[in-house]
Amino acid sequence: MIIVKLGGSVFSDKSGEPENFRENVVRSIAGEIKDFYPEEDFIVVHGGGSFGHPYAKEYRIREGLLGLSEDALFWRKKGFSLTHHAMLRANMKIVEAFIDVGIPAVSVSSSSVFLMDSDRVVYGDVEPVRKLIETGFVPVLFGDVAVDLARGVDILSGDQIVTYLTKLFRPRKVIFLMSVDGIYDGKPGEGTLLFELSPDEIDNLIKRLAGSAGTDVTGGIINKLREAKEIARFAEVWFVNGLVPGRLSGAIRGDGFGTRIVP
Amino acid sequence: MIIVKLGGSVFSDKSGEPENFRENVVRSIAGEIKDFYPEEDFIVVHGGGSFGHPYAKEYRIREGLLGLSEDALFWRKKGFSLTHHAMLRANMKIVEAFIDVGIPAVSVSSSSVFLMDSDRVVYGDVEPVRKLIETGFVPVLFGDVAVDLARGVDILSGDQIVTYLTKLFRPRKVIFLMSVDGIYDGKPGEGTLLFELSPDEIDNLIKRLAGSAGTDVTGGIINKLREAKEIARFAEVWFVNGLVPGRLSGAIRGDGFGTRIVP
Repeated sequence: MIIVKLGGSVFSDKSGEPENFRENVVRSIAGEIKDFYPEEDFIVVHGGGSFGHPYAKEYRIREGLLGLSEDALFWRKKGFSLTHHAMLRANMKIVEAFIDVGIPAVSVSSSSVFLMDSDRVVYGDVEPVRKLIETGFVPVLFGDVAVDLARGVDILSGDQIVTYLTKLFRPRKVIFLMSVDGIYDGKPGEGTLLFELSPDEIDNLIKRLAGSAGTDVTGGIINKLREAKEIARFAEVWFVNGLVPGRLSGAIRGDGFGTRIVP
Repeated sequence: MIIVKLGGSVFSDKSGEPENFRENVVRSIAGEIKDFYPEEDFIVVHGGGSFGHPYAKEYRIREGLLGLSEDALFWRKKGFSLTHHAMLRANMKIVEAFIDVGIPAVSVSSSSVFLMDSDRVVYGDVEPVRKLIETGFVPVLFGDVAVDLARGVDILSGDQIVTYLTKLFRPRKVIFLMSVDGIYDGKPGEGTLLFELSPDEIDNLIKRLAGSAGTDVTGGIINKLREAKEIARFAEVWFVNGLVPGRLSGAIRGDGFGTRIVP
């Protein structure tokens, strides 16, 4: 089994119009997966891109439900649902693009499955996901809103879902598709591309990135590196450019261009 | 807690255009629920109406995945996803209509939660649904496609979901909203409206209905009565007309116009 994380900045332009969708990019990625399917099982997890993020930000989902007036509470709960709906719209587009190229993809709603506690996934019954795979489907999950046992609600990142699924399904490989060539020794897309990275080196890199200017830019990558270190305990991890045809195939075969985490 | 089943023929015209939606009817129903919320917890489960049924029929989901050629297998799996997407479109409309009148509704994807075996629900982890309720949401589930352990895939009726949820949540009342006034001693909408019905009388009624002409018409009601008999072991059951304002409120209060199953 291989778990593929389809970054939000791959299937859409985060700085573009709301809910813009790179149909051709997604079809190309699905086409590369098709070359290895069904000999290899796949789970796909995608991010929010131009779909979920604007709602999550507008309704400040990350701030939770504690200490709110009745009106503010309802407003945030409304935002919870609307963010989920935006993610469903992205998810349906991705699933249908996969189907168009011959992959039997199927939507799984993360917020119907996972619970969080203080910003971490603490619960999620993946038996339906397991049975979907056994039945010959490719489940497509997504970063989503979720109930948080401490804070009421929170945003559940696609990266965290990947970590959780990796622990339970033990894929042989986890591949993160990004809009840059991999992990850099500096800001994403700048500095030197790191072809190999050990879990120990990840800690040093996180320290350097956290100390650099522009933590808004690097925050995402720091969280991603933290997940990657955890995932690397169980599977080979790759970071490759999802916008460049062939990079995913390379990571699947093992001779890819990008960053490989070596245990 | 009260579980409300919103029939597909209530929120849409099954014989009308694909994906037609009775926005005003759904808002009116949500408004009646609002009169009792949040003092009373609610779970809503809706049917397919003009959304899911055309896809389920076109792709013959009920026939499962056994004995199919590779092409036919992919085609049916595609139908599985497209049926789910149609249901998600209905679900988002219903959730947003509820939100518009002030109910913090939230979508729960049935196929991400439930597994079937030979046409019955055999598995479903409802902990996320429970936590959504505890957090102050009204979960809105729906009849959906589902993995069937024997047949590959099947259609999971909203009525079956209601039975399953009733066993686990023990609501004090389960209310089925239909497009007729309740259960009739004959074809739906014809014959005598039955104001009260005991579980034993349900068996006799099913026998009479099964023996009558037009089983296509009565098939739905027979399955509904079977579920109702099971549900009546745990909760008071009402069948009322969801198209007539006030009928739902009457059933919630207990002085409603429709059919009540008396244990």
